[in-house]
Amino acid sequence: MHFTPERMAPLKALRLGIDSHHELIIYLRADCPVCRSEGFSAMSRVLVSSDQQYAIATLNIVTGDLLQKGQIGFSEPAWRRLALKDSDSIWLSHPKPVQSLSYVRAKVYGHTLDEMAFQSIINDIVEGRYADVHVAAFVTACGDDHLNNDEITALTHAMIKAGSRIDWHLPMVVDKHCVGGLPGNRTTPIIVPILAACGLTMPKTSSRAITSPAGTADTMETLTNVSLSQEEMRQVVKQEGACLAWGGSMRLSPADDLLIQVERALGIDSEGQLIASVLSKKIAAGATHVLIDIPVGPTAKVRTTAAAEQLARSFHSVAKKLCLNIEVLFSDGSQPVGRGIGPALEAYDILAVLQNTPNAPADLKNRACMVAGAMLEMIGHEKKGEGKKKALRILESGQAWEKFKAICHAQGGLHMPPVAPYRYSLVCHHAGVVAEIDNRQLAQVAKLAGAPADPEAGVEFFVKLGEHVKENQILMTIHAANAGELNYAVEYLEDHHTIVRIDEAEI
Amino acid sequence: MHFTPERMAPLKALRLGIDSHHELIIYLRADCPVCRSEGFSAMSRVLVSSDQQYAIATLNIVTGDLLQKGQIGFSEPAWRRLALKDSDSIWLSHPKPVQSLSYVRAKVYGHTLDEMAFQSIINDIVEGRYADVHVAAFVTACGDDHLNNDEITALTHAMIKAGSRIDWHLPMVVDKHCVGGLPGNRTTPIIVPILAACGLTMPKTSSRAITSPAGTADTMETLTNVSLSQEEMRQVVKQEGACLAWGGSMRLSPADDLLIQVERALGIDSEGQLIASVLSKKIAAGATHVLIDIPVGPTAKVRTTAAAEQLARSFHSVAKKLCLNIEVLFSDGSQPVGRGIGPALEAYDILAVLQNTPNAPADLKNRACMVAGAMLEMIGHEKKGEGKKKALRILESGQAWEKFKAICHAQGGLHMPPVAPYRYSLVCHHAGVVAEIDNRQLAQVAKLAGAPADPEAGVEFFVKLGEHVKENQILMTIHAANAGELNYAVEYLEDHHTIVRIDEAEI
Repeated sequence: MHFTPERMAPLKALRLGIDSHHELIIYLRADCPVCRSEGFSAMSRVLVSSDQQYAIATLNIVTGDLLQKGQIGFSEPAWRRLALKDSDSIWLSHPKPVQSLSYVRAKVYGHTLDEMAFQSIINDIVEGRYADVHVAAFVTACGDDHLNNDEITALTHAMIKAGSRIDWHLPMVVDKHCVGGLPGNRTTPIIVPILAACGLTMPKTSSRAITSPAGTADTMETLTNVSLSQEEMRQVVKQEGACLAWGGSMRLSPADDLLIQVERALGIDSEGQLIASVLSKKIAAGATHVLIDIPVGPTAKVRTTAAAEQLARSFHSVAKKLCLNIEVLFSDGSQPVGRGIGPALEAYDILAVLQNTPNAPADLKNRACMVAGAMLEMIGHEKKGEGKKKALRILESGQAWEKFKAICHAQGGLHMPPVAPYRYSLVCHHAGVVAEIDNRQLAQVAKLAGAPADPEAGVEFFVKLGEHVKENQILMTIHAANAGELNYAVEYLEDHHTIVRIDEAEI
Repeated sequence: MHFTPERMAPLKALRLGIDSHHELIIYLRADCPVCRSEGFSAMSRVLVSSDQQYAIATLNIVTGDLLQKGQIGFSEPAWRRLALKDSDSIWLSHPKPVQSLSYVRAKVYGHTLDEMAFQSIINDIVEGRYADVHVAAFVTACGDDHLNNDEITALTHAMIKAGSRIDWHLPMVVDKHCVGGLPGNRTTPIIVPILAACGLTMPKTSSRAITSPAGTADTMETLTNVSLSQEEMRQVVKQEGACLAWGGSMRLSPADDLLIQVERALGIDSEGQLIASVLSKKIAAGATHVLIDIPVGPTAKVRTTAAAEQLARSFHSVAKKLCLNIEVLFSDGSQPVGRGIGPALEAYDILAVLQNTPNAPADLKNRACMVAGAMLEMIGHEKKGEGKKKALRILESGQAWEKFKAICHAQGGLHMPPVAPYRYSLVCHHAGVVAEIDNRQLAQVAKLAGAPADPEAGVEFFVKLGEHVKENQILMTIHAANAGELNYAVEYLEDHHTIVRIDEAEI
């Protein structure tokens, strides 16, 4: 700050109700004296202070009559960050230069950063000192293979320290992560009760969907309460050995959420940031043993076995430095898993598997037991080759279903997922063999139908690659909460005939 | 575009009067059906279409009553880009993926890009397809020495082609550029009339200040009209052989302006982008022979002779590939030049030098003649060692002043710069020697006093490094248009005693 801001009269805060996502934005009139005197202009970074708090925000200049003289407008994230009330007094000044940007520049210049440098960068990002362009520069500078394993370890440490960390005071706490989602691949709510029924501790926190039709937290929310405080989560885990909660409100590796948003906008993925993202979340949640599931397939995030093996090596190397036990599993990433795509439809798949009903999707059941089995083997609970059998026994005996119900009751009660009133079924116009499925377009249909905002919306997808289908057989059914969204999804479907390719079958 | 946007009712355009600088922003209500159906959320990139035009914009979601149902709000740059009128019909859809981002990613992965790749990137940036985070990724990926000389050449070519280019149909058109400004270093308005008086063609376009107290265009605007169309500029140059115009409205290398803004926010300078920026502007303006002035000093942009020599080598190498004749000059970058800092005060220095008045700042005169002389030698107009003498003769004979008046008259008339009514002088409290001057803080005082928005505001700075000063000698005078801004600058001065350091003189 160049000098005490009190020398100018304060501005009066006004909530504009503009959601600028995570970026803090303030709005000032072009004729505001502080703009002139401080030399602020559109897009300046400005230190905004109330009587209680301060934050750095990006300035937008207002030329119309959106603001009265003496007012300062706030976007929603800026309003929340400063915990303001209408007409609160606000002072503006120049923020101190963000020192850690010199480390970002050093990374651009090809230098190796130490843990102190990563900690400064991550702390400044979490405290809102970086504009999105700064985060983009950091993500880009760390892209490709620009971080060595020591740097990935240091970045992971820094991300853990910037948030809260749960200590379960137990020698073994298990967790799992799937790299790059497949539509409908909702194995977690099946794996958790299987392992908890085996006596393991698995305090599972999951995310909501960001670009997909459902996240594990969205699916679980159609069955029970998932918004637990850390204290409530501890209570559930103490009682049942496991939970299935939403991780969003727990401040576990908060830098991760901010980095992921910019990475997604840029489409710049790096092995280093993927590993730091996954491991920081798991370690912050208190895990000691983690299974990493990497689906490999032509339209999956990891497309070849060679790429999967390289990623697995780096995961192992960094996890070792962080004293975390991990195991990496490669799985089939070629097509959707289960039948449902969308929160409630996926929940019905899960219930069918847990309840051992005859029409339960076999691929979902098989996948869940494979992962659970690998975890039982990894921790020495079962011998090599025996894990999956054990998982199947626990599932088929009904113990996993009993444990699932108990976990849901501890979280606030088990209820049935909603059912969509509006439906449309796509039938096959000729007999043949399912030759190709476009996972991305399928997810788009589910989102147009309303998922995940409408939990009952989505797609039931009935066929698998290589399956023989008959004329007029139903390939998929779209579910929607209202006629408008149903029509929107159907129109998209009609314009995209390549979502499922049916080849003429050989006779 | 996924499907024809006409299937939804259009939204009605509303101008919100928010200046989001160069980034196009649109505002939609959270309950807007298109958000739900298209899956748009805060910060989504959206293709916005009117009946006539389209553009890609970033979405902000409005939760208050800023917008009525069915309305869509526009920031000023978005409103201008689409050339809208109130209540115009607007359709929204998903933009096609920006293909050239794959080249940015390739650069992150260390690949070498060809001219086609740079052209795609630069065209997409100029057409507004990149959000700021994408520009930041490009700038970062090209940072440090990540571009080889062939890539810098390709980038320069691409930047030239993305804008307009002036062809003077002459064998020799001269220009100059100074890398990294010093306060008050306004030599251009002296050099141009000297060279034009020697019969050279010098169609000079300059920029306004972005972060400094004055740009050459701001200074010239206190003396004459600088907002010329390309046609008006041609007319002035045809008549007088030279002009001193503002380059902002001529679309010469428009990508440069967008890249520079993000580079400045990031503080990531790269040799490659500096060279492409300078040379693309000069070649687009039709120059054939360019002198590059690199001030070297501890607080200048280039700090050591070694760094200056490396930069000069790269400039030579790229200019050769672009068939542009250049000469690089190293100059003293240790302290301000002339007395005035601010548009009108610098203009008075220029007038004093051109009119050969006794109190004309000798350092400004010397610098201008040194650069003009180097240019005369570079083009073979004068022998080595004779250029500066020739420049001095032209200046001292009054020919440069006559030419300057003629240029100003051709541009619309010569008038006297304004004079500030409010002043404050800082005196020296003890005798001694001027040991250090903080150029950055000095520029800050001039900006707080109102420069460049108030052209008469700024600082007159009277002493030079190594000069002996007496007790009560005036070190600087602040000029302001009103008492408020004067006080603001004085308060800053009182809080920053290190702007000028006076050491006790040895006896």
